[in-house]
Order: sequence, then structure tokens, then C-alpha cells
Amino acid sequence: MKLTFSPSSPFARKVRIAAIELGLIDKIEFVPTTATPGTYNEDYSQKINPLRKLPALILDDGSTIVDSYVIVEYLDELAGGGKLIPASGAKKWQVKTDHCITQGMLDAMLLCRYEKMLRPEQFRWQTWIDDQWDRAWHGFQRFEAHPDVLTRPLDIVQIGIICALGYADFRFADCGWRKAFPKLAAFNEKMMQRDSVKISVPPI
Amino acid sequence: MKLTFSPSSPFARKVRIAAIELGLIDKIEFVPTTATPGTYNEDYSQKINPLRKLPALILDDGSTIVDSYVIVEYLDELAGGGKLIPASGAKKWQVKTDHCITQGMLDAMLLCRYEKMLRPEQFRWQTWIDDQWDRAWHGFQRFEAHPDVLTRPLDIVQIGIICALGYADFRFADCGWRKAFPKLAAFNEKMMQRDSVKISVPPI
Repeated sequence: MKLTFSPSSPFARKVRIAAIELGLIDKIEFVPTTATPGTYNEDYSQKINPLRKLPALILDDGSTIVDSYVIVEYLDELAGGGKLIPASGAKKWQVKTDHCITQGMLDAMLLCRYEKMLRPEQFRWQTWIDDQWDRAWHGFQRFEAHPDVLTRPLDIVQIGIICALGYADFRFADCGWRKAFPKLAAFNEKMMQRDSVKISVPPI
Repeated sequence: MKLTFSPSSPFARKVRIAAIELGLIDKIEFVPTTATPGTYNEDYSQKINPLRKLPALILDDGSTIVDSYVIVEYLDELAGGGKLIPASGAKKWQVKTDHCITQGMLDAMLLCRYEKMLRPEQFRWQTWIDDQWDRAWHGFQRFEAHPDVLTRPLDIVQIGIICALGYADFRFADCGWRKAFPKLAAFNEKMMQRDSVKISVPPI
């Protein structure tokens, strides 16, 4: 299998952490890829993902799986199932919901990043940045208020939270999340003891 | 169950169509809700979804399921499973992937909409609009090139495509998708014969 990958993509990081934790990392070849709004890549649009997003998993038969969540689901099944995503019951829906929220937090933070760094300065709109940031921030608040999510055995929600926190450190180093969310800070410290999490921290 | 809902939301429409097709519509109370970037709703952020997005399904025990895809998965399971999303095999991953692409097409079209209508005119950036639109357009191209997706029994991918086409008609009436994609146009005609699709067309 091949994975289109960038070390700065929090979505690609999620798959990398999951693949390591599931014992599947050696089966995946990482293919360095860049994806930036405003930069077109017709080949990628047509053959891999019309949305031009990372990561995509390309199977040996040539078929492609997106997005990062579906790839983790696929790898989880390959590893026997029910490892990072509960296979059934009310827990399954809670994990899927919470993961969706971490995904949306990352989407919101990426929109902030694009607005602040990619968009020419004269076209930036503070109302948009504030709104998107508020979504991510409320997401962190949610998990700070439900520390049971942070202490149970490793799952896709915890990986999603780690990727969101890592992205906050990477792109919004001054946002002060550690001070605002002490339980998330302790969770982050603990998770950093895992090789999968430590070696995948985005490059400075 | 309650569903936070707006008739103009393509994501809420997806759940509505699925609920009708699965025979579950009578079990869901629709709760009119608005969600616009720049308008805060602390209650919704804290109790329903920190991302402030529609739709959310609120179960009778008070727990909440997001996003639209996870809600459809939940309803599908409630209806017996494997109805709109294949339960296993290579087909399952292809359907999940293709559905993800319809989801991303809608995300991209919503970003275009916000840029063109919500953002003050002096802050609009054409490069962004062009980029996001290109993603949605390439998505339509993908399905036009794989008409097998359009002719098989109803599934979540077809519902996703219908919601994307309906949103194009609703917000980008002059984009010319029918001329560019004749197979999608025929598919849309055919799907409009279903009550679920017809009655959920966004209001003009």
C-alpha cells in the first residue's frame, strides 16, 4: 500500500500514528506529496482525489481510499477490527461522533491557517478567523470536560485529539491551550511517551 | 430522536433522504436550527456540537450523533444494516471513499458560497473561490466518468451526489453542470422521481 503523505499534515499524521499502533506501518510506503489551496495538480485530482487532499491510501490493486478516517477504519479492519474504533454498541457511535469533532476541529484550524498565512493580507477577514477558531476551541473544551475520553485505552478519538493539539503547537504556538486546558496538557504529555506520537510531531 | 435541521443545508438533506428511504422518517422530529459562520450559539456549541454545524441527531437518552455521515450510518444500522452502505467487502471501502468525496464537494461549495455571499466584498479572494470550485467540479467529473455508480441500487454515494447537484442548483444556478455532465443530468432526472429527493429540494 502507498500513502500520499506530508509531515506537516495533521490528517496524514493521524493515519501514521494509527498504522504504527496497529502494527501495519511496514506495509505502507509513504509517498511525499504537497497539497496547497491555489496550487493545482491535475494528475492527483483525476487519479487520486478530486478534492486534492492528503492523505490517500492507494491499494495494491490501484484503488484508492480517502479520507484519513476511512483509511484508519480500513487499517483497523486489516488488523482484526475493533482496535481503534469499537466494533459495536453505543460506544461505537460516541467514538465516531467524537472523532468527527476532532476532524472538524482540524478543518477549522486549517481554515484559520489558510486565512492567516496563505491569503493575501488585504483579503483577510477577522470575523472568519474568530469563528473558525471558536469551533476548534469549543472542541478542546468538550474534551477537557470529558476526561474519561482521555484515560481509556488508545482509540481514534485520542489520536484525533493529539493531532489537533500537535497542530495547535505547530501553527498557533501562542494560543495558550495548555493553560486553558490542563487535562489536555497532561494527556498530551502522557501520549508523547508513545513512539508513534513522538516521532510524528510535525517538523518545526 | 430529534434532528437539528435547516431546509437549505445539503448535509441535513442527506439525512432526510436517507431517513425516508430507510422508513425511519416518522421516528425523527425535525428541529429548525440555523448555523451561519460569524453567528455564535453558545448553547449549541456546548450541548450539541462544538463545530456549530448541522445536522446533529439527538437520541432519546440525550446523547448526540454527528456528522451527517455518521447519522446515516446509525440510521442504516437501525434499519437492519447494509441498506445504504455495504456492510463488508471491497464495495464498502469504495462507497465510503466515494461518499467522502461527495462530502468534500459540498464542503468546497459551501466555502465558495461563504466567500461569495457572507464575506464582505472587499475581503473576497478569487483564487480561493476558483480553487474550491475546482475541487467540487473534479468531483462531478469523477462520477460522470464512472456511471456505474449512478445506475446501481440506491446508496449513500448517490444520495451524496444528489445533494451536491441540488446544492449547485440552489446556490450556483448558472454553473452549467447539466451541460458539462450529461450523465449526471440524466441521473438527477431519474432520482427526482423519488419522493425523498423531490420533497427535499432546497427552497428557492
